[in-house]
Amino acid sequence: MAYKIILDTDPGIDDAMAIAYAIAHPDIELLALTTIFGNVRTHEATANALRLLEAWGSDADVAEGEAVPVSVPAHEPSYSVHGRNGFGDVELPATARVPHELDAVSYISEMTRRHPGEITLCAVGPLTNLARLLERDPGIVDRVRSVVVMGGAVHRPGNVTPVAEANFWHDPHAADQVLGAAWPLVLAPLDCTMPVVFTPDFMAALALESPRFGEPLADMARFYTRFYRSHLGLGGCVPHDVMALSWLTVPGAFRLQKGALAVLTEGAGIGQTVFQPGGTSSRSSVFDARPDHLVMVDTDPAMFLADYMRVLTAAADG
Amino acid sequence: MAYKIILDTDPGIDDAMAIAYAIAHPDIELLALTTIFGNVRTHEATANALRLLEAWGSDADVAEGEAVPVSVPAHEPSYSVHGRNGFGDVELPATARVPHELDAVSYISEMTRRHPGEITLCAVGPLTNLARLLERDPGIVDRVRSVVVMGGAVHRPGNVTPVAEANFWHDPHAADQVLGAAWPLVLAPLDCTMPVVFTPDFMAALALESPRFGEPLADMARFYTRFYRSHLGLGGCVPHDVMALSWLTVPGAFRLQKGALAVLTEGAGIGQTVFQPGGTSSRSSVFDARPDHLVMVDTDPAMFLADYMRVLTAAADG
Repeated sequence: MAYKIILDTDPGIDDAMAIAYAIAHPDIELLALTTIFGNVRTHEATANALRLLEAWGSDADVAEGEAVPVSVPAHEPSYSVHGRNGFGDVELPATARVPHELDAVSYISEMTRRHPGEITLCAVGPLTNLARLLERDPGIVDRVRSVVVMGGAVHRPGNVTPVAEANFWHDPHAADQVLGAAWPLVLAPLDCTMPVVFTPDFMAALALESPRFGEPLADMARFYTRFYRSHLGLGGCVPHDVMALSWLTVPGAFRLQKGALAVLTEGAGIGQTVFQPGGTSSRSSVFDARPDHLVMVDTDPAMFLADYMRVLTAAADG
Repeated sequence: MAYKIILDTDPGIDDAMAIAYAIAHPDIELLALTTIFGNVRTHEATANALRLLEAWGSDADVAEGEAVPVSVPAHEPSYSVHGRNGFGDVELPATARVPHELDAVSYISEMTRRHPGEITLCAVGPLTNLARLLERDPGIVDRVRSVVVMGGAVHRPGNVTPVAEANFWHDPHAADQVLGAAWPLVLAPLDCTMPVVFTPDFMAALALESPRFGEPLADMARFYTRFYRSHLGLGGCVPHDVMALSWLTVPGAFRLQKGALAVLTEGAGIGQTVFQPGGTSSRSSVFDARPDHLVMVDTDPAMFLADYMRVLTAAADG
């Protein structure tokens, strides 16, 4: 196993696409899903995480995370994008599985003590769990192998306000804290996710070639695609959350830029990502103390799509 | 000092531009120039390195490197690009300084033992010294902080054959060995250098604002620019070698892609860089055992130019 991963997630349809990929990929050992609000509420995310793992035969843990943001009041979940149940109204069978006894923050603390330097945190929802983790266990920055975050919008507009991407908007203080921390972090913002579209054709092929994963995902994608079609005029849906995993497994599909990051925590710009390219200066002193991180600023869609199809297809009978 | 650097160089006009930047930058401690053939012969590179350090008041060491490539016969130096003396016929005053008693390979070995994990090797000429270093001192891969190489052409044509860039073409076996080694390496190929042009206006401003560095560089650039104008139709010259330093000091000016690299060592393609994007596979098994490295695939020219001007101007009276 090349990568031991804890996936912090608010499933969610593109979360399900990422979880399928993590389970299917031979180089990923999925230790756990830690849950968070965003696409749905946290307890719904936990239930959804348990059902996905049951459906796909994974024995990864599920550890429930924070229920509310660090400082701002909680927003309504994104039910209009992901459906009232988070899966575009597709009902997965119930499961008798239960969450881990540890909450998400304690679980990550404990597992990174057991495997220091080995675990990659992939966070694809609002960053509340990671922010609380930094508060309660500052030594975490030296115990993770790396952190990959899906969130923000660097050189392009937001998707929930003119400037804010949904994950950062749900908990801007948490996002600001996570991006300012001195751990090895790679950011997967809308810049790298929006060039990739899962068309109905692509989803149909996935269902055909990889029934176990592809059939439920194709079913869920119908609801999700209606949203992208009606709101953005796209010919399919965008698998945002997958990118945080693909950075590890198919890094050649991305273009990167290095620099310091901050997230606005108030006013009309709340949730906006601000990026200062590494080695440049400005009149803002905010960036002086902030580490440079790698930011995924563009994607080769064909390379990404081929990899996703290949990984899920190869695992079809697994 | 953020970076302790050994610059492996064949001065050369763009080498002189890089050496000026290294001396001028407050975050760079230039430990030494190690010399190599390419733009000129090695003994000429050594003499040129000594003269530049004298002219610019640096007490960095000069350690002489290999005189001939690892396997191929030596090519004629690039006198037509850099002038018969390597400096576009600009004569720098002679100096009584002498090279270090250690040869380049021994010098790098010794200094990285003295400062393990602290030294960055920036190689901006043919890679013969670095290849010999890997042969004679394999432990070097764990003692350098990082390696930055200017050379090759990844997604664009070569500059000395349809597919080969000059540094790799001069010693393709060495380049192949250096890119295949498991040290933390960033490649600055023509992809990131060719978008940047030092125009006569830019060089005139540099001479005005930073006489110590800018006047000799502007004088040298005339010869160099004539070559770029007549051979490529460019409105100025390309400061290739500077990019290997700018990656450290102004990383935000570049776009990166991760993948495995090889260099062709025979036939019509000799010296060509072959790049396999990270996480993809192909029918060639060559890449299976090769580490992924970061490749600088594009540059923001304005960000690069502003940084170069600022660094040399700020050091004008230093």
